Amino acid sequence: MIIILKNDSQKEDVDRLVRFIEAQELKINEVDGTDRRLLCIIGHTYNLDIDILKSFKCVADVKRIDEPYNLVSRENHRDDTVITLTEAAVKTQIGTGLTFIAGPCSIESEEQINSIARKVAEYGAGILRGGAYKPRSSPYSFQGLKNEGLRMLADAGKSVGLPTISELTEISQLEYFDDIDIIQIGARNMQNYELLKEIGAVKKPVLLKRGLSATISELLMSAEYIISSGNPNVILCERGIRTFETATRNTLDLSAIPLLKLKTHLPVVVDPSHATGIEELVSPMALAAAAAGAHGIMLEVNDNPEQALCDGQQCISTEAFKTIVEKSKAIVELIGGSKH
Amino acid sequence: MIIILKNDSQKEDVDRLVRFIEAQELKINEVDGTDRRLLCIIGHTYNLDIDILKSFKCVADVKRIDEPYNLVSRENHRDDTVITLTEAAVKTQIGTGLTFIAGPCSIESEEQINSIARKVAEYGAGILRGGAYKPRSSPYSFQGLKNEGLRMLADAGKSVGLPTISELTEISQLEYFDDIDIIQIGARNMQNYELLKEIGAVKKPVLLKRGLSATISELLMSAEYIISSGNPNVILCERGIRTFETATRNTLDLSAIPLLKLKTHLPVVVDPSHATGIEELVSPMALAAAAAGAHGIMLEVNDNPEQALCDGQQCISTEAFKTIVEKSKAIVELIGGSKH
Amino acid sequence: MIIILKNDSQKEDVDRLVRFIEAQELKINEVDGTDRRLLCIIGHTYNLDIDILKSFKCVADVKRIDEPYNLVSRENHRDDTVITLTEAAVKTQIGTGLTFIAGPCSIESEEQINSIARKVAEYGAGILRGGAYKPRSSPYSFQGLKNEGLRMLADAGKSVGLPTISELTEISQLEYFDDIDIIQIGARNMQNYELLKEIGAVKKPVLLKRGLSATISELLMSAEYIISSGNPNVILCERGIRTFETATRNTLDLSAIPLLKLKTHLPVVVDPSHATGIEELVSPMALAAAAAGAHGIMLEVNDNPEQALCDGQQCISTEAFKTIVEKSKAIVELIGGSKH
Amino acid sequence: MIIILKNDSQKEDVDRLVRFIEAQELKINEVDGTDRRLLCIIGHTYNLDIDILKSFKCVADVKRIDEPYNLVSRENHRDDTVITLTEAAVKTQIGTGLTFIAGPCSIESEEQINSIARKVAEYGAGILRGGAYKPRSSPYSFQGLKNEGLRMLADAGKSVGLPTISELTEISQLEYFDDIDIIQIGARNMQNYELLKEIGAVKKPVLLKRGLSATISELLMSAEYIISSGNPNVILCERGIRTFETATRNTLDLSAIPLLKLKTHLPVVVDPSHATGIEELVSPMALAAAAAGAHGIMLEVNDNPEQALCDGQQCISTEAFKTIVEKSKAIVELIGGSKH
Repeated sequence: MIIILKNDSQKEDVDRLVRFIEAQELKINEVDGTDRRLLCIIGHTYNLDIDILKSFKCVADVKRIDEPYNLVSRENHRDDTVITLTEAAVKTQIGTGLTFIAGPCSIESEEQINSIARKVAEYGAGILRGGAYKPRSSPYSFQGLKNEGLRMLADAGKSVGLPTISELTEISQLEYFDDIDIIQIGARNMQNYELLKEIGAVKKPVLLKRGLSATISELLMSAEYIISSGNPNVILCERGIRTFETATRNTLDLSAIPLLKLKTHLPVVVDPSHATGIEELVSPMALAAAAAGAHGIMLEVNDNPEQALCDGQQCISTEAFKTIVEKSKAIVELIGGSKH
Repeated sequence: MIIILKNDSQKEDVDRLVRFIEAQELKINEVDGTDRRLLCIIGHTYNLDIDILKSFKCVADVKRIDEPYNLVSRENHRDDTVITLTEAAVKTQIGTGLTFIAGPCSIESEEQINSIARKVAEYGAGILRGGAYKPRSSPYSFQGLKNEGLRMLADAGKSVGLPTISELTEISQLEYFDDIDIIQIGARNMQNYELLKEIGAVKKPVLLKRGLSATISELLMSAEYIISSGNPNVILCERGIRTFETATRNTLDLSAIPLLKLKTHLPVVVDPSHATGIEELVSPMALAAAAAGAHGIMLEVNDNPEQALCDGQQCISTEAFKTIVEKSKAIVELIGGSKH
Repeated sequence: MIIILKNDSQKEDVDRLVRFIEAQELKINEVDGTDRRLLCIIGHTYNLDIDILKSFKCVADVKRIDEPYNLVSRENHRDDTVITLTEAAVKTQIGTGLTFIAGPCSIESEEQINSIARKVAEYGAGILRGGAYKPRSSPYSFQGLKNEGLRMLADAGKSVGLPTISELTEISQLEYFDDIDIIQIGARNMQNYELLKEIGAVKKPVLLKRGLSATISELLMSAEYIISSGNPNVILCERGIRTFETATRNTLDLSAIPLLKLKTHLPVVVDPSHATGIEELVSPMALAAAAAGAHGIMLEVNDNPEQALCDGQQCISTEAFKTIVEKSKAIVELIGGSKH
Repeated sequence: MIIILKNDSQKEDVDRLVRFIEAQELKINEVDGTDRRLLCIIGHTYNLDIDILKSFKCVADVKRIDEPYNLVSRENHRDDTVITLTEAAVKTQIGTGLTFIAGPCSIESEEQINSIARKVAEYGAGILRGGAYKPRSSPYSFQGLKNEGLRMLADAGKSVGLPTISELTEISQLEYFDDIDIIQIGARNMQNYELLKEIGAVKKPVLLKRGLSATISELLMSAEYIISSGNPNVILCERGIRTFETATRNTLDLSAIPLLKLKTHLPVVVDPSHATGIEELVSPMALAAAAAGAHGIMLEVNDNPEQALCDGQQCISTEAFKTIVEKSKAIVELIGGSKH
């Protein structure tokens, strides 16, 4: 970490800053430039609060050299984290190879989820997804079947031998997730720190979606919240960021895949359905995610999108899902696993 | 609302769509263009789910003509909403004239909050602010004094006769807000819909901050969540949006003030401290907010920013606050109130 | 196109608007909604100036249903445009299969460009690239070898039998492009309309890079400028857009590939080198572009990046290039050409 | 400037880097951190090419401490640059007090420009504006009256005693600007470096508009191009940046005013008309710009916007202009000039 001192800073102010830093068992190397004086802080600075440093009267600016996270960092944990879902009939892993997470946007009935579950299981899904608590931007939109939906999802998963995932939008819902294998934290809750801390107390794997305007570094900081609260089983999910472009719902940032794999040991999953919001774009983006090295691809699959109570315009059919699985697996084999 | 049909759509698919729309007591006017067929939907469409419409097989695209909100809309509520905080010794109103919300970023001690409270009250603040539950991007940063901090804030407010405001980050904290007059919902929780619904059940005024990447329309939809859940006392707060520019922490969107005043009857407040993150920019942006017609300005004020446990770099002194109040009030008088 | 009338509009104002539209041989269908009156304009509206419509006193808003372009549109030209560079020893095509455009960021010497040219030709490049006129954000940075560089590039291309491409930054440079096969228009000139019109008068193929903050629609409008000025040989290039994320130089928008292929018949090329600015990300993003259906991939290749006078941090070696070509071609074969 | 070395870098590679830096008469201070080795470069580094540094094999990253510009910097030129237009009957200055630049978006006829010129001169404009070469996103839109329009503008300016400004979109138009007092470079040409260099050879004042996605630093770099080419008379113009928000055409970044005034000595002007694209927002944003300390406000004024051939929806009437001038001048007096 580099602290740039103000040109007119007083010796006593700088001394106070130096004492503050040294009290945290960090060393300082002072550099006198032509126009500037710098303090280079030596040691582990991830837990140093940059805002407090900037509040010192003598500080003009602070530049981080090291990352502001620790537990999620690849530097401290060279091997990939692989999460194994042992309770399922089929042993599913995320973090090695390519895992498919598939199912409807919303769970709407027993019949609907069972029918989709059978097909995606047959066609190669490793995990069954389905929304029960739906965060909707309008209070007048369908908000999901809630705990009843979760029960249907768990039953469907068991009947086809697949582990399940669903989104939790408030900690009070946790009791209904007993039979769900992975808890999803949605993009709009990525910086709901209270929720992250509480999820950190749960031992269940968590799929953490990147916020609409969250940087890669902020996504990792949110994962750091969960892990530092006790839960190391975090899966990261790129699902599109908000940009000026409105032709797609969001802009899918596939470069996040190789970048995250450089910076962290956690598995990286991609959701091309929500990101694009356009059915015709889902397949090319899924294949691209496979080619870019994703550990998982999350897809909205529904054979009857016209009855879908949300997001039907981006659903793919089970037949389209089958083709994506086949081509993606061939791509992964061809490029030599999820490594390049 | 305009529905654009696919060129190759089947009669039975269009009929099904028409029945769906008519079942919601809306009328349809069909228009045959050269290359396109359109359905113009006539009636109140704010509660029509655009995603469901798009899921119909025959639909190519949907364009809203009316806004997706109702209760917050200026069209249905011509007069400005004015919120009065009657319990305070000084009667404070938001929604008419210009109200100052001032205090430290974080409450750190009785002495600190009392000392600041005395000065901001003397210099023209209408509401005392102070953070107790702090949402911080790093789990290693100071997270606030929590309920103890809220107590200090309430006491300080009472001793100087000012109503108080503080941020609530999870509904379970609500019991500690009994003596706090306004509940703040932070930018990162603006789309935490569960929290919005629960806050809607509380009768206390709510200051809702615009999310980092939330559009004006989404901010209004979040306010609609609160009002439709039963609480009409919502204050909107522009606090900077995330853009590509990194020279300021966020980009303060002052055009949101007159735009929101066109679209909604709710009061509009601006927070130039968080938005810019640079002390020297706070005063010009506060005066600009006053000139743009804001109903309130929210400022981080602290006479000893070097001891501030967060965001010291954007704190202004009580003396600077005094000058801003004087100049802002003169500007408002000059431009003829908060109307242009 | 839908025109939303103001609620209080006068009959004579609406009549004037109606006459204006009808004078352009367009028909109007009026729709009376509950709160709004709409005019649906029927006919080809791409050349209708939306700004002029909005200037009419009675107009509240205008929504496009049809695209604002014509010549570039897939609707009017179903077959893919394939550009053939016949003058080269090797017949290179863009718009069918997958074409590699490779070479150094900047041409620095005869020796450098010849050495790279030999290797990329051997390893599968279809076109040789090299910068001669370099648009640099600092006036103090190396600005390229200019016309001398172009001559070296043309010679190198001829000696290895590859057509060549280089960026033109001002129309006065055109005379030096006689022996260059494709003219590149850079991202910062994508909306330099004077240049686009002049390039439209040239018959040579043009590779048009998407501007840093240009929408897909604006990119197509810029291509429309070139084609409507007489030059139909336009290649589109996605090279990353500017977003809030700073971990990569820009955010590569790979969804632009399938989206552009839906909307236009023009070939779509991707430049993962500039977009990411990080060597380790170039290969995964190149393979992802192939999987997403790109017609071409443009890469900075340089065996001695340390001597590179610009952008060395994103250069890949000729060996890395060889591997990318092999894997990408296998991916294209696997997914069944550039179609999905 | 701080260079972060790769952990595994070889001594000979670091030595080569050190020699490269020292050859540029800069000193190096090496700092050994716990996990990192840093080189702190001491001296004037604005002309050091960060891309070349990053291309060295041993370099992991480079962080600038000093700004990448020199001539535009406030550090090297403490006093505000004030530009005086002496040829006009009325002596107009930009860079002190508040100057109004007003006129139609497009010049459409002698009658139109003369009529507007008379009124804006009477109501307090310091400079007459009018577009003759119009950069339009569609090739089918009105492109301006070109040199004929410039002549009308110059005549109108002379007849009312006001200096004039118009946009130049290509250097070949320069001959027609003989009687125009200020050359405007539009947002889409802000990084057209060839044009900037050529404009640098002209002695006439230049108003440089910020690009749609240009950072403050990039705007200053473009000004540095002009000044380093010989023309010190540069006026900067904030005109809105592109963000995710679509309710306004662009997002007017008023914080750019005080920020630019900290960083540079050049005058700062704001254009609220183009930025918002909404007539009702122009006045509040103009007053806000005055309150934020702008040196100038640029406004589209037209008494008959319905006949406007472009951008009529954001035009204000001459009466509205009169009110803005009066209120803005009162605000500037109140806040104590353009300083805070």
